[in-house]
Order: sequence, then C-alpha cells, then structure tokens
Amino acid sequence: MSQTQIPVAVLNQLKSAVSAGDVIEQAEQVEPFVHDFRHLFSGRTPMVVLPDNTAEVANVVRICAEHRIGIVPHGGNTSYCGGATPDASGSQIVLALKRMHRIRKVQPLDYAITVESGCALADVQAAADAVERLFPLSLGSEGSCQIGGNLSTNAGGTAVLRYGMMRDLVLGLEVVLADGRVLDVLKDLRKDNTGYDLRHLFIGSEGTLGIITAACLKLFPKPAGTATAIVAVRDPAAAVQLLASLRTSSGDAVTTFELIPRLAVDLTTRHISGVSDPLDRPHEWYVLVELTSARPEDALESALEGALAQAIDSGLVLDAALASSLRQREALWRMRESVPEAQRHAGGSIKHDVSLPISAIAEFITRAGGWVASHVPDGQLMAYGHLGDGNLHFNIQQRDGADVKVFLARAPTIQRAIHDLVAELRGSFSAEHGIGQLKIAELERYKDPVALALMRELKRALDPLGILNPGKVLRKESRTS
Amino acid sequence: MSQTQIPVAVLNQLKSAVSAGDVIEQAEQVEPFVHDFRHLFSGRTPMVVLPDNTAEVANVVRICAEHRIGIVPHGGNTSYCGGATPDASGSQIVLALKRMHRIRKVQPLDYAITVESGCALADVQAAADAVERLFPLSLGSEGSCQIGGNLSTNAGGTAVLRYGMMRDLVLGLEVVLADGRVLDVLKDLRKDNTGYDLRHLFIGSEGTLGIITAACLKLFPKPAGTATAIVAVRDPAAAVQLLASLRTSSGDAVTTFELIPRLAVDLTTRHISGVSDPLDRPHEWYVLVELTSARPEDALESALEGALAQAIDSGLVLDAALASSLRQREALWRMRESVPEAQRHAGGSIKHDVSLPISAIAEFITRAGGWVASHVPDGQLMAYGHLGDGNLHFNIQQRDGADVKVFLARAPTIQRAIHDLVAELRGSFSAEHGIGQLKIAELERYKDPVALALMRELKRALDPLGILNPGKVLRKESRTS
Repeated sequence: MSQTQIPVAVLNQLKSAVSAGDVIEQAEQVEPFVHDFRHLFSGRTPMVVLPDNTAEVANVVRICAEHRIGIVPHGGNTSYCGGATPDASGSQIVLALKRMHRIRKVQPLDYAITVESGCALADVQAAADAVERLFPLSLGSEGSCQIGGNLSTNAGGTAVLRYGMMRDLVLGLEVVLADGRVLDVLKDLRKDNTGYDLRHLFIGSEGTLGIITAACLKLFPKPAGTATAIVAVRDPAAAVQLLASLRTSSGDAVTTFELIPRLAVDLTTRHISGVSDPLDRPHEWYVLVELTSARPEDALESALEGALAQAIDSGLVLDAALASSLRQREALWRMRESVPEAQRHAGGSIKHDVSLPISAIAEFITRAGGWVASHVPDGQLMAYGHLGDGNLHFNIQQRDGADVKVFLARAPTIQRAIHDLVAELRGSFSAEHGIGQLKIAELERYKDPVALALMRELKRALDPLGILNPGKVLRKESRTS
Repeated sequence: MSQTQIPVAVLNQLKSAVSAGDVIEQAEQVEPFVHDFRHLFSGRTPMVVLPDNTAEVANVVRICAEHRIGIVPHGGNTSYCGGATPDASGSQIVLALKRMHRIRKVQPLDYAITVESGCALADVQAAADAVERLFPLSLGSEGSCQIGGNLSTNAGGTAVLRYGMMRDLVLGLEVVLADGRVLDVLKDLRKDNTGYDLRHLFIGSEGTLGIITAACLKLFPKPAGTATAIVAVRDPAAAVQLLASLRTSSGDAVTTFELIPRLAVDLTTRHISGVSDPLDRPHEWYVLVELTSARPEDALESALEGALAQAIDSGLVLDAALASSLRQREALWRMRESVPEAQRHAGGSIKHDVSLPISAIAEFITRAGGWVASHVPDGQLMAYGHLGDGNLHFNIQQRDGADVKVFLARAPTIQRAIHDLVAELRGSFSAEHGIGQLKIAELERYKDPVALALMRELKRALDPLGILNPGKVLRKESRTS
C-alpha cells in the first residue's frame, strides 16, 4: 500500500478549495484525527481539510466526487463506535468541521438557536443560557463534542426522558449532499408540511448520506426549581410502576429517573471519596429521581413527597430521602455519575448500550441477570442507567480476584447472548451510541432485513459514488458506475 | 377514454388478494371514494380494495406493481388538498384502510399505544383515555379522520404547541413498500440508534413512498387541571412577547395560545348564538390562553394571574379575564371555534394555511395586512389561529356588500402575493394541510430547489414504477424502465 492513494494534484486542489489553504498534512498533526478516543480504531489519511464555511465544504465535496475520494466528517472525535476515524488505506480525507463554530442566530422569542456544526455542545448550551433559555441536550463529553456529531449520531444523554433525543430538538438543517449541492431546509418553523421530511435522513446517519453544516435547534424555558430524591424500590418492576405514576402525579416534570443497583452503591462508596450509603439500611435497587420546573414557586418537593408516600403505602417503595440542600443533591448525583469510574477501579467490565420497551425492562433484567448468574461465574451484574427512557447500561463487572484477561476474552460470546435476548424483547442493541464501524455486524444480525435493504437503497440513491464516510453504518459496496 | 384501463383479469386478481373478496365496484358505492370532501377534485376508479390486514395490503401492492397500476391510499377522506382522490383516468385503484381498525396493544406503562392505520383518531383518543392516558393529537375531523391519514399528512391541530405534530408522536411504524415488502420498524423504544431513521420518510409523504399499515404512538399523562383566560393584547408583537414569557413563567404548561382579532369577535357575536364580547371594552387583538397540567393541585390559575398582572404592568396586555367556571371556559372556546362558521355567514373568504418563525409573525401581519388594505378594498383581514406554533389562518374576509364572485375570482393573485411574502420571511405556504394535488405548483415555486430535486430522487428510489399515489406531492414522471 502506498503512503497515499490520492494524487498530489488532487491534494493541491483540495488545499486551494479552503481559505488560507487550511489543511493539515504533517504526520504528527494528522495523528489526533486518525484514532478514535477509545483507541479501538486507527487509520491513515494524507490530509485533514478544515473548511471555514458551507461553500468551502461544498467545494471539497465536489472535488472528492470528481475523483471518487472518500470523505470522513470529523467533529469532536468523541464517537464510541469509530464513526469519525478513516480506514487504513490512506485513500480517504478527513473533513474537520471545527472552524465552522459560529452561532449564527440566537432567537429567544422563537425559543430557537441557529448554529454551525463545529460548535461545541457546551457553547450552544451557554449561548442559550445567556438569553435565559435551555438547550437541553447534555452529555458527558459536552465540553468537546460538536453539534455536527450530536446531529449525525442522534445523541442522547441524560435529559432524553423529558426533552427527547437530538433528533427531537431540530427545527431545520443545512446539509452538503454527496455531489456538493447545498440543501437548505434551515427553517425555524414548528409546522411545515411542504413535502418529504428531509432532515431526519441526515440526523443519525453518521455522515454517510450528507454532511450537516448548520442547524436550527429548539430551546426551552430554563428550569428554576428542582426536587431530587434517592428512592429504594422493591425491584425493577416497582421502579417501572413508580415512573409511570410519577409522570402523571408530577405533571410530567420527571427529568431524571436513573436505576442504581446495590453493586453500584457498594463500588462507589468503596472507590469514590465523598460517596456514602444514601439511606439508613442497604437495599437491592435504587432510583435517583429528579423533577424540574421553569416555575420557581412550583411545589415540586411536596408533589414528589406525596407521590413517594403513596408509593411506600402501596409497597413499591421501601424507603426514600429527598435532598434538602444543594450539597445533598450533588452527593446523590456524584454517586450516580461516578459509577463508571468506580467500575474501572474494580476491574474489567463487559458493557452493553441497550434499550427496551419500558414495560419489558423488569423481565429483561430478570432473564439477562439469570443468564449472567449461570453463565458468567466470574462476573456480576451491574445494570444501571436511564430507566426513564428505557436505556440500560447493562454491564457485567469482573468479580474480585477473577482473571481480567480470561473474563474480557469472553466478551463477544456474552454480548451476543445479551443482544439476542434484547432482540427477542424487541429492544435495541445500540440505544444511543450508533453503529460507526464497531457495530456493523450487529446491525446486519438484528435489523429488520427490509429495513437494512432500504438503508442500502437510500445510500445508493443519495451517495451513488459511495464517498461519504465509506464503511460506516453500512459496509462498503463495490460500485459499477 | 375507456370505462377502465385495468384489465378484468387483473381486477379479479386484486379481488382474490383480499379476504372475502372485499372490494367495491358498483358505481354508486364507489362514488364516495372518488371525491374529496371539499369537492375540489373528482376522479374515477374501477375498484376500491379493502384489505383486512398487512399481508393483504402487501398482496395488493405486489399485484399493482406487476401490472403498473396506480394505488391511491384512502383513510377518512378528510384531506384539504385532494390527497386521497384518484385521477380521472380510471387507471388507479383506491386502497381503503378502514377494515384495518384494530388497536393492537395499549401500553400504559410504556405511555404508548399500537394501532392500525384504519383506526379513527377519536377511537385512539378513547382507548388512551380508558387507561388514564392522553393521546394529544386533536383535530376538527377527529371523529372521521384515520390514523393512517394523520400519519401520512403529518397532521397538526390544536395541541401542537405543547405536544408537537403527528410526526413527534410516533415511536414505530409498519409500512408496505412499493414492491410489496413489509418494513417492520414498529418498535416502542424511546432510544434506538441502529441505522437510518426510516419512519420520517413515510410520515408526511402522503402515501407516495409507502403505505403505512400500523404505528406505535406516544401517550402522555392526562391533564387534570386547566386555567383559561381571554387576554386583550396591545398588538401581535405584544402577543408574541407574552407567549415567550408565559412559556417560562408557567413552567411550559401553555397548551393553547390562539390569536383572535377584533373582526372575529364582531363576526362571532353577530352570527353565533351565545357568543358575547368577552371583555368590558372592545380591543383590536385578543389571545385565548390555556394552561394545563396533569397535577390536579397544580396552581395554574395563580401562575396565569401573576403572569398576566405583570404583562399589564409592562403594557403588553390591556385587559384580561380568567374563566372562573367550566361554562365561562366553554364560552371562550365557542367563540374561537365558531370563527370559520361565522365567516361563512359573513360571505366569501380567501384562506391561507401559513406558518412563520414566531418572531416574524408581527412583521408578517403588519406587512401582509398593509398589502391587503391597499390591494383588496373589498376585503378585510381576518388573521387568527395557532400563534403558539407560528401557524396563522391568514384569511381575507369579503366586506359587507361586496360581490362575492368578483372577490373570490381574485384569490389566485392574492394568494400568490401573500405566499411570496411568507417565503420572503422564511415561512411555509402549507403549515399543516400538506400538498396533495392542490399545492404542487406552490411547492415547485417555493421549495428550495435542491430539496425538491432530492424529493424526486427519493421518489424514484423508493417507488421506481411510480405506482404509489401517483401525481400527489410531486407530478407524475414518465418512467423509462
């Protein structure tokens, strides 16, 4: 394989397509663009191109279409599935959007904001906050991930129960198509029934159907009041029932509903300083519940207290404590958020990003937990996470003293068994992390075959030359044209 | 033109594709299926086919694909744009979904319901209500329109500000594709990032890309408390400001925010019995505001009172009255809902179903109103409707004594001028009624040309033979294959 399969003349053409010849070619500067941040994948590229505006993106795409060069769009490089990493051939360029970080328009009256793809998520949150609005998408990586990546992976995070996925937060889009045409559906309208909805083709398609360059996003009233509680529940089925009744009794103010098993309390109290057992006695299952409202005088605490008292009477809830200060609230969140760190201290972990119909979660935990107990003697179940939107981090934690290499070597077999059960219960093997290059085989195994075929037909229709993020989501096809 | 262009042998094949040979062929029984309910369009068909289940829909589509016969999907026949009416050739069959009216699954824990396309909207609302849940889509025609039509036109209605359009209420879909394959993405998951989102291709595409046979829909907590007020505002700009501040101060509990001009009060008090002037003195502009909450003890009235008092202090609001009884609330709603009826009593009306960015509404009313005042001396402006989601019924009402024929004859010229201004302000010429066969020329004039080209490419990819609702949304193309 040659150092690069892209002729120098074409690279020069690309260089002149962006203002100030803004490209990166030196090996050590290219380095950060050819690895994913989990270090699962690594590739090569002769050039990272950094356009400054939509017209330059279109120029780059036109040149690549002419010469059939693969383009790997690149945002904050926080993909969990290698979605932004070029392949090893050296025949693909990386298109980094980070120069396009303008906030084009802040629209408090419209409860909307128009931003370019290269904006960091945290900058969009801050711009909304500055006009007393909320942009609700919230992720661990929000300081570095970019809006373009959030859009192209349909990001989830911690506020989905209340505000939906990234897809649900989009009013309009600007997209560069595979032949360099610019699609302008960048409207800020709540109602618009003028033909096919083209936005959702590009949201969540991981840069394989078009390159999103800007978006108009929904904003919301800023929360002013909060009520937080840690709740010991009888079992996961009781947690599901509590969620259903709390959505009604709180007036749909539930923003957080996170399942926490005893093992998570054990590991965080052991490994994370400042975390202590949250209730007087230990329990098997907990839920971290938070209600929020934009009305500061809203009686959220009494609503939550009343609902929990009723749930104690009916046996769903065994014990509960409301956070009575900001300090107490932060301590509860610290316990929840430090679960991954505590897991790392405790050894290896086999992870799954699954979602299920909420009514199937209890059955799933029982059956999958039973399977783990009988098939993985050196592991123990750590099922926790966003119960409120059906998304579980169904992790299997290495037991003390187990051999981590032996344990982790079984990951593919274990994941297959867990995903098979998820499929049986009509769940999803990838709730929020997408496909990238990591989960293509899973997609081929579990996706409805007609849906998979239709995806391929769409790819051929929108990117007939196969130059947009080749080999992500779908395998590369040999093209006859 | 022959009576039918479909050979008898093929009609017999279609008849045997549905159980009990469930087809309609007799002219007088076919009649209701070949006219739209506004009587704008009328067509012909040799046969209405009534499948009982998804497999039968697939059978019918396969036969039509084999013989290249156009299929017109038909729900409750409440389209405003002739979307469900066959053309005059007699070469298209009508596929009526009304036999497929099963509620497959009611899922209160999941806040979801799975229904077939032929269900009446009101039946879905009732099934949700029976388990203490709300299905929020609400339309004038809810007793007769069907879920399949709501999905394929992305229906709007009176609750969009709070709950979104039909599109926003969908978790999963089952769709028969143009070659008879059945696409199964009928999941009830809140999070699922496994490949392209195929649902939104079919929602709002008016049966031209596939035939939706079933859907899993979101449910919500049932509202238990309500606060309603009629508010006289300084002008439309003040109404927009009031909306923005009320969304925050109410904790995003605003469900209704309807703009009502003086003319609407005049016409309803004159023509509709039981409607009286709602405030002590007449005002130019009113808003009907309603907050709802699922928490019965929620202090909605005091929140609304407080917000309105503040808005009076700042000069946005001139006067306001809260409905203090169910009777008062119903009287306010009666005024709002009888505007179309009062307009009919008052003579001809030239109508527009437009939407705008909310921040552009005041400018639009000023400029479009000025244009009407100087160009349409025999008409007067009646701009009212769902200000909360940017959707105005921008109607021009014939003045007393004007010649209705002369007045209405100018409709195309007037609509063109109004739509041109809507386009200049980046609004939409069809907020909730879609395209059908009525607005194809408008679509061609106003749609982003790249978006329109992409729509055609999608149509060719998903329906290469052009058999699905031919001539709706997009013009028929001559196919070479």
